[in-house]
Amino acid sequence: MFAQLHPFSQLTPVEIRKVGEIISALSPETRLIFKTITLQEPDKKQALKYLEAEHSGSAVRPLVERCAFIAYYKKGGDRLHEAVVNLTTGNVVYNNELDKMLHGPGDYEEVGVIEALVRDDPQVRKELEKIGFTDTSLVVIEPWIYGSDGIQDERRQYQCFLFARDIRNPLELDSNHYAHPLAISPVVDVVEGRVTRIDYLPTGADEKVTPPQAYKAHPANEYVPRYQALRTDLKPLHVVQPEGASFQVTEDFAASHLLEWQKWRFRVGFNAREGMVLYDVRYDGRPLFYRLALSDMNIPYADPRPPYHKKAAFDLGDAGAGVTANNLKLGCDCLGAILYLSGSLAGPNAEILEKPNCICIHEQDGGIGWKHTNYRTDNAFVTRARELVLQSILTVSNYEYILAFHFTQAGDVVYEVRATGILSTQPIDDGVQVPWGTVVHPGVLAAHHQHIFSLRIDPMLDGINNRLVYEEAHPMSRDPKLNPHGTGYINEQTTIEKSGGYDLNAQTNRTFKIVSSTTTNPINGACAGYKIMVPDFQKGLADRDSFHYKRAEFLDHNIYVTKYRPCQLYAAGQYTNQSRGGHGVRTWANPHGGKDDVVDEDIVVWVQFGMNHIPRIEDFPVMPVEIIKVHLRPANFFTKNPALDVPPSSQDINKSSLVSMCHRVEEKMKL
Amino acid sequence: MFAQLHPFSQLTPVEIRKVGEIISALSPETRLIFKTITLQEPDKKQALKYLEAEHSGSAVRPLVERCAFIAYYKKGGDRLHEAVVNLTTGNVVYNNELDKMLHGPGDYEEVGVIEALVRDDPQVRKELEKIGFTDTSLVVIEPWIYGSDGIQDERRQYQCFLFARDIRNPLELDSNHYAHPLAISPVVDVVEGRVTRIDYLPTGADEKVTPPQAYKAHPANEYVPRYQALRTDLKPLHVVQPEGASFQVTEDFAASHLLEWQKWRFRVGFNAREGMVLYDVRYDGRPLFYRLALSDMNIPYADPRPPYHKKAAFDLGDAGAGVTANNLKLGCDCLGAILYLSGSLAGPNAEILEKPNCICIHEQDGGIGWKHTNYRTDNAFVTRARELVLQSILTVSNYEYILAFHFTQAGDVVYEVRATGILSTQPIDDGVQVPWGTVVHPGVLAAHHQHIFSLRIDPMLDGINNRLVYEEAHPMSRDPKLNPHGTGYINEQTTIEKSGGYDLNAQTNRTFKIVSSTTTNPINGACAGYKIMVPDFQKGLADRDSFHYKRAEFLDHNIYVTKYRPCQLYAAGQYTNQSRGGHGVRTWANPHGGKDDVVDEDIVVWVQFGMNHIPRIEDFPVMPVEIIKVHLRPANFFTKNPALDVPPSSQDINKSSLVSMCHRVEEKMKL
Repeated sequence: MFAQLHPFSQLTPVEIRKVGEIISALSPETRLIFKTITLQEPDKKQALKYLEAEHSGSAVRPLVERCAFIAYYKKGGDRLHEAVVNLTTGNVVYNNELDKMLHGPGDYEEVGVIEALVRDDPQVRKELEKIGFTDTSLVVIEPWIYGSDGIQDERRQYQCFLFARDIRNPLELDSNHYAHPLAISPVVDVVEGRVTRIDYLPTGADEKVTPPQAYKAHPANEYVPRYQALRTDLKPLHVVQPEGASFQVTEDFAASHLLEWQKWRFRVGFNAREGMVLYDVRYDGRPLFYRLALSDMNIPYADPRPPYHKKAAFDLGDAGAGVTANNLKLGCDCLGAILYLSGSLAGPNAEILEKPNCICIHEQDGGIGWKHTNYRTDNAFVTRARELVLQSILTVSNYEYILAFHFTQAGDVVYEVRATGILSTQPIDDGVQVPWGTVVHPGVLAAHHQHIFSLRIDPMLDGINNRLVYEEAHPMSRDPKLNPHGTGYINEQTTIEKSGGYDLNAQTNRTFKIVSSTTTNPINGACAGYKIMVPDFQKGLADRDSFHYKRAEFLDHNIYVTKYRPCQLYAAGQYTNQSRGGHGVRTWANPHGGKDDVVDEDIVVWVQFGMNHIPRIEDFPVMPVEIIKVHLRPANFFTKNPALDVPPSSQDINKSSLVSMCHRVEEKMKL
Repeated sequence: MFAQLHPFSQLTPVEIRKVGEIISALSPETRLIFKTITLQEPDKKQALKYLEAEHSGSAVRPLVERCAFIAYYKKGGDRLHEAVVNLTTGNVVYNNELDKMLHGPGDYEEVGVIEALVRDDPQVRKELEKIGFTDTSLVVIEPWIYGSDGIQDERRQYQCFLFARDIRNPLELDSNHYAHPLAISPVVDVVEGRVTRIDYLPTGADEKVTPPQAYKAHPANEYVPRYQALRTDLKPLHVVQPEGASFQVTEDFAASHLLEWQKWRFRVGFNAREGMVLYDVRYDGRPLFYRLALSDMNIPYADPRPPYHKKAAFDLGDAGAGVTANNLKLGCDCLGAILYLSGSLAGPNAEILEKPNCICIHEQDGGIGWKHTNYRTDNAFVTRARELVLQSILTVSNYEYILAFHFTQAGDVVYEVRATGILSTQPIDDGVQVPWGTVVHPGVLAAHHQHIFSLRIDPMLDGINNRLVYEEAHPMSRDPKLNPHGTGYINEQTTIEKSGGYDLNAQTNRTFKIVSSTTTNPINGACAGYKIMVPDFQKGLADRDSFHYKRAEFLDHNIYVTKYRPCQLYAAGQYTNQSRGGHGVRTWANPHGGKDDVVDEDIVVWVQFGMNHIPRIEDFPVMPVEIIKVHLRPANFFTKNPALDVPPSSQDINKSSLVSMCHRVEEKMKL
């Protein structure tokens, strides 16, 4: 049965359970804790042959072997295991115990266990009592990925941050406990299942640590609407699509989702780590991208003092964009005519974790798409830019990321990140200010932090061999004949020959482009390409000897380019939890100390972007969205504006209404 | 009657006609050609006193003298005159003949005259005949601002670019003539009203010019929808606001428009040069900005060869954002519940140029505003970000700019520019490529060009005295106690002491902020401020000795700060047509060779942004919008997320609908 599935189908529930059985049968003596059961990306040569057959309309489809990738622990063991199962043959391809320094991601079940054992730990209770908490139900325990500093961190651990409930309103389970951080931080050894250490947190202006003081409640700071005096002057706005949506989603064999909209055609996958994955993205039949997905993100914090120095989460690698995806709700997270996709992930027991409504698909109006008025005839022609949106929202403890692919009628693919949710907070003494964070509430510090994202682009512009180039604008030298007035400038293209990390330069207008190795523009002869429009960002601030720098192998360059190699999907490597580096894109770009040739090869382009979040008090108790967009925009790929054939905008179709104004003419004024 | 008007009211038709009469009466012997009749900004001290009274609710309003600013020519004369009339007293404050190097802007009437005289010019006809055009109705004449190069350009002139109509379809007046550029360019002396020179345009790879060849028609390239095979699969999308809009516009004495929306309150002005102007912008009663308007824009072109080296339009200074504003149409340019404002400008005879529907006011859904899910209770709270939009669209010959102020519920003011319309084109020989432009159609070159905008911000954050600061994030040095792992970083604030030009630096996360001189944040003690989030851009590429550099005094820095002085409104000076520099923000920032103190003063902040437009073939025949946004965002100005009280998003209110998918289960596949 597996052979019938499209090669880009995510693992089905049947497959997940089957894999669980196959792997469990290898260790009948022990219970396994599965960290990952996911599709192993198909062999690319086989998959490309399959796509060739699919797009030629052939009913004969070549075989693509279907494999699953598995990572697991043995119950009570401290060593991560990794396996691949060939689902086509039923064979176990390999099954290995990994190095002791490699750790699998967290999961909700594990986090629940950690919370409970911290709550029940006698030493923790004693510490809480010292500051006045005899009732631990008044305390919220937030297990954090332990991070890395090279100090007794070989074993799998959690660092727990503690918060009080609002003690004046303790039954409100949706109260914002991040407004009440405590200065006690227990550390848990996951394998032993016990608290091994209780850190006191520094709460002053320097690194000094004293035993926490008796708890003094500050005012609450709630984000939940029932605690607000809500605005009453916002009138409803409906997006109505009387004939339904313009897109069509076809579910192939209950496993692969084919999306077609306005000349776009691609497949939508969903997995535990990356969440949404797009495959085989084509426009008007022309191949553009073999695979598109957010590869990872890293959030290093600015507070230099232990244990905060270890805070540098990889929200995909340590947790997972699929695992943490919200169940989206009609009319709340999107407007208009909406189609939801649901996903099936694997739980720790190879059981099915249903992720209902984890991807929302809808259209939105993007404002004017193009307009021109002929001033001689006064005739205006205008179109509106309809966009297709695929959106997924992650909750990673306190923080939220709204991740979306947008497709435009002008041939653009846009990746949009909206950061929202609640700042990660820590206690600070009254009256103290520190330069590595902002006081956002009395007693509450939100440390500065960077969000650095890596978008992985596996391009296939008119074929799988592509090249990465950059263009720069440079002034021409004065020349009495050609540039007599010093006003000329030219645009120059440079081909990137070798794998590596490359940077933007606003002052030369440096713009990276992926271009086809095979096609040029029939009108102007330029390389048929897509340019990458990405805002610059401050690269990772931790120093080059730090673990932050070593681990997040993508935080140092705007662009990385590597030669395609199977299993190089995640910019900081397969295992980021307590990682030490050496397994990510910086390493892959320098294989065996050398460089790969990347001209007219099967390349992968890694686009980094992000922000240095210096918290404002306006980001608390819940943060208005901060938006970052990456545009992939055709540049001499087509022969005209691809949106030229969008029907013109008209009132007949759009049915807007007129608002009238008030007139004040009678008021008396004295002068 | 004038005294009753709000001081920020634009000139009324009655006032415009009155001014025309007063000024005309000074020169009874000659007809005047008015270039400008507009509100002279009120004396700031008087206006601030008025605002104080207005916001205190006092019925007693102090006197603000009301003045008009006038620029005009005497018919047949070559000298520009400038005058100010005090409308409160009826006095002429001054009336001066200006230096011969200063020239007023173009206008539609003038452009029409130029077109006609070029069409009728015997030499032009002879040149056109040589290349095959005996019928000049097949030729479109586009007068361009002459620009400056110091060569016989003291007098007011136009450089005309010529285009053919599609000779296979000559009756189509909306045909895209920019696809058929001709290599003949007549120059017109405006005062003499005659063609003084006919330039041949270079069409090869270098500066060489030969007499134009016989016209060879290339294919048409139309943007008008009736020439397209339009898409048929786009279904309607309506924005429906069943209870109307949430904003209210009050017209005071048929002259000033007061806008109130979601705690925002400001006045909307409209004038010939800047188009939309916002005054007295307040949030929840707190003053933020005294005045906000786009100050100017400059578009220098890359082609170094005469006469193209002079192409560097100031679309506000040379033409005017109000003069060129489109009559917006319901359902075409905006969706939903829309209120239009109309303007009354002055024509060359002091007659009224009505600008109906030149500003569109509407709300839009901005996606999710904030969201958090408590993963313990699984309760999600989400709001949608409603935005208020004030939009105006300019047509400057070939090009369009969609200019908009957006206001958010989280206290942001956003200035958005969408560039669209048609590229400025020129002829190029078949098979030729040049590094300063892109061939976008056979025989058609679109030269690279920069768009550089200057947004003028006259702030009054909690009072008229403010300061400009910038913040940077810097890594901390390793320190065994405070930064033992090399991960710490801090945010540092620097106050800008002196007027001048300042630049962004992504690698230090340099962020400029306007902060109040009087208030600090009551919770964390930080300066109450608004940060300026603006993308970096490549500064002007023309060399420092060029007229491009000298004239566009704002093209060299991301930020300028100056001390407020009356009549310093436009970043490249009052008169940009054939200007030579010395009258703009670079000069004002260095008054009398020195610098102004700008700490805790009445300051003006000039924010530059833009793009280096390297044309893609996809930008032709009409260009998909390129979007640039500038955000003014509160930073420790409030004490919480200002959008915390936005009602939660719910299906009850939003009324979205579900789309279902297709299921394909039966297809046969052979392996």
